[in-house]
Amino acid sequence: MELKKEVKNIAVAAKEASRTLGLLRSDLKNAILKGMADALVKSKSYITKANEKDLRKAKRDKLPDALIDRLRLTDKRISGMVSSILGVAKLKDPVGVVEKMTKRPNGLLIKKMKVPIGTICVIYESRPNVTADCMALSLKSGNSLILRGGKEAINSNIAIFDVLSKAATRKGLPRNALNMIKVTDRKAVGVLLGLDGIIDLIIPRGGESLIKEVTKKSRIPVIKHYKGVCHVYVDEKADLSTAESIAYNAKVQRPGVCNAMETLLVHRSVAARFLPSMAKKLKTAGVEMRGCPFTRKILRKMNIATAKESDWHAEYLDLILSVKVVKSLEEAIDHITRYGTAHSDAIVTKDYKNAMEFLERVDSSAVYVNASTRFTDGYEFGKGAEIGISTDKLHARGPMGLEELTTYKYVIFGNGQIRK
Amino acid sequence: MELKKEVKNIAVAAKEASRTLGLLRSDLKNAILKGMADALVKSKSYITKANEKDLRKAKRDKLPDALIDRLRLTDKRISGMVSSILGVAKLKDPVGVVEKMTKRPNGLLIKKMKVPIGTICVIYESRPNVTADCMALSLKSGNSLILRGGKEAINSNIAIFDVLSKAATRKGLPRNALNMIKVTDRKAVGVLLGLDGIIDLIIPRGGESLIKEVTKKSRIPVIKHYKGVCHVYVDEKADLSTAESIAYNAKVQRPGVCNAMETLLVHRSVAARFLPSMAKKLKTAGVEMRGCPFTRKILRKMNIATAKESDWHAEYLDLILSVKVVKSLEEAIDHITRYGTAHSDAIVTKDYKNAMEFLERVDSSAVYVNASTRFTDGYEFGKGAEIGISTDKLHARGPMGLEELTTYKYVIFGNGQIRK
Repeated sequence: MELKKEVKNIAVAAKEASRTLGLLRSDLKNAILKGMADALVKSKSYITKANEKDLRKAKRDKLPDALIDRLRLTDKRISGMVSSILGVAKLKDPVGVVEKMTKRPNGLLIKKMKVPIGTICVIYESRPNVTADCMALSLKSGNSLILRGGKEAINSNIAIFDVLSKAATRKGLPRNALNMIKVTDRKAVGVLLGLDGIIDLIIPRGGESLIKEVTKKSRIPVIKHYKGVCHVYVDEKADLSTAESIAYNAKVQRPGVCNAMETLLVHRSVAARFLPSMAKKLKTAGVEMRGCPFTRKILRKMNIATAKESDWHAEYLDLILSVKVVKSLEEAIDHITRYGTAHSDAIVTKDYKNAMEFLERVDSSAVYVNASTRFTDGYEFGKGAEIGISTDKLHARGPMGLEELTTYKYVIFGNGQIRK
Repeated sequence: MELKKEVKNIAVAAKEASRTLGLLRSDLKNAILKGMADALVKSKSYITKANEKDLRKAKRDKLPDALIDRLRLTDKRISGMVSSILGVAKLKDPVGVVEKMTKRPNGLLIKKMKVPIGTICVIYESRPNVTADCMALSLKSGNSLILRGGKEAINSNIAIFDVLSKAATRKGLPRNALNMIKVTDRKAVGVLLGLDGIIDLIIPRGGESLIKEVTKKSRIPVIKHYKGVCHVYVDEKADLSTAESIAYNAKVQRPGVCNAMETLLVHRSVAARFLPSMAKKLKTAGVEMRGCPFTRKILRKMNIATAKESDWHAEYLDLILSVKVVKSLEEAIDHITRYGTAHSDAIVTKDYKNAMEFLERVDSSAVYVNASTRFTDGYEFGKGAEIGISTDKLHARGPMGLEELTTYKYVIFGNGQIRK
């Protein structure tokens, strides 16, 4: 029961701090962020040492190479964190922005104003840079933060957190505004999920099982950062060289992320012209293809594997691609609706009507005409930085930047109005 | 297991229908709404008969008078439903509205566009007019609807639903867009709450126990319509006659609703001048007062009861009022933060600084200066109609009208852009 009390105390203090934090002026918040960035630069070797501890343990435990790579903090990655914090300092403060103003017939002036959400809890897995990103974004948006990182990165996370939070406090951040649950006991997550009324929002960032567990157990609103099964559809009326460039980019440029393409859909009437050269290019890049019968027929010389039902659902996050030939735009949209995760989907076409129909009928957070799905990203959308990419429909959809970390309240100016 | 299958089938069909419904043109939706209003006018006696059945059962079961009153459909209430449907037809359609447009340096044009949420489930208790309101609002906002009303109003709800949905289908509404779970078995609610991935949003409208049950069991996002413990604070610098008029209105004009005042806070330096006349006026209106020691001392001739800790938390929804004298604005804000439900709170003051501090520091969905809390309402806020008043912070806060029943997607226009 000690653990329960400890975690709850942290959350209660965070909520309390959020009241002060929410009223902090932008120039003070920016000065704090600059102080944090400076401290990070000065503490490179301290953080690297903590990180080496995690790396040694990961190797001893024989964790997969991909995970070890995500865990590793190179000089370049630490500099990345620094510039990301400085980037957040440069972003416009969303708090206090009036989105809408209405003067009612009775003279009431109603302003809809952006305010912080309150206390946000981020539960994440192995990437330690998430620690710095979340701290900067929640501070700038005026929200208290409770971080709970994966045990694989615990030493790195604690080192980054300690350096940044000490620097922030020195520069005037209210105590308890930024918090980390440092005990690795898994029960701590269960305690956090039960703190409704104290924590206002939970953001799980990690694998499918983590997200499922959080959603199932939480009584607090959750914004899921779930998987991206993204599609590029090459229409009958596509410019085939544009299609090849977009599909190649969507698959190959960075295959391990949620906005990378996992399934390529090709209209039947262009498949025989498009697929052989596309497949050759993909193969050269090391992409393994799995195709529908029609695709396999066209690419019979390459002898690619048959795509199974599970392939259409798969988020490979790797140099693997499922390919399907469809007989119509209709079939492409139906496939995306059925197997997609409403993340990012693109059509390549020169036809106005097909483009509009695709944009209208595909219900994904980002729907593209003639561009790569890889652009679904806070920075690319002009938000400056992101806490993640929401795959939910409520509150925030797609890239979540500072604005998406706010809610609103109505502020009403009267001069004695009463309801008749 | 039959029940489970039946409820799931309804939800799956609703989700399917939402794809067509979401693309319906405004003029067709408005024509359908007008057809629904016409049908309701013609079916008054049919609906009244079904309502009498519910009323007879309620009397047999000796349900409380207040509940029987909420259940009763008078001619005036049916006309109210008709004009509410016609009112929704006149509102601006939010679907397809572009909130924001960004042209990125690489030439991508990104539009943030309002789209329907998908499938919404409303779980409500005894007021049958909720049936008509929800059907009109979800249709206009392009969302499929699953209604689950309380068993006390089952005959009234079914009658209203059947009349409206038949009329809507005749006018061209896609089949299965509007649905009602007609079995009264309580297990049906449990089944609905488990249909994540099919239902996109649950809105519970009713008492505390219903809302708690839904929040606890649901894996689907929930927007709570919880209680309103609303405050009016009479500042040291208040115009006392304005204060009296606002406090009286907030308590007496309609005490049974969530935006009515439950606690009156009065600054110590004006308490002796303000309270006696205020209390006399409230007493005349039949209001029972419960006071802090200081209040009781000032009103000793009236011999009012002592307010207990539970009174500060109470949503009376009745002609009862707790009264507290505070020694500062600070104490008033702290009281509201501690005991309020972040619904609607007001300050009465002539002082600029106090007004601004109250607006800034009270974190409620609606914060008022010099106006009655009773204005927190979709119609009064200029939204035309509301599906309820959210006490949550995520997605929608305060009155939920058509706009709050939408989410958004990013629609991106490119000409071959790939990520570097």
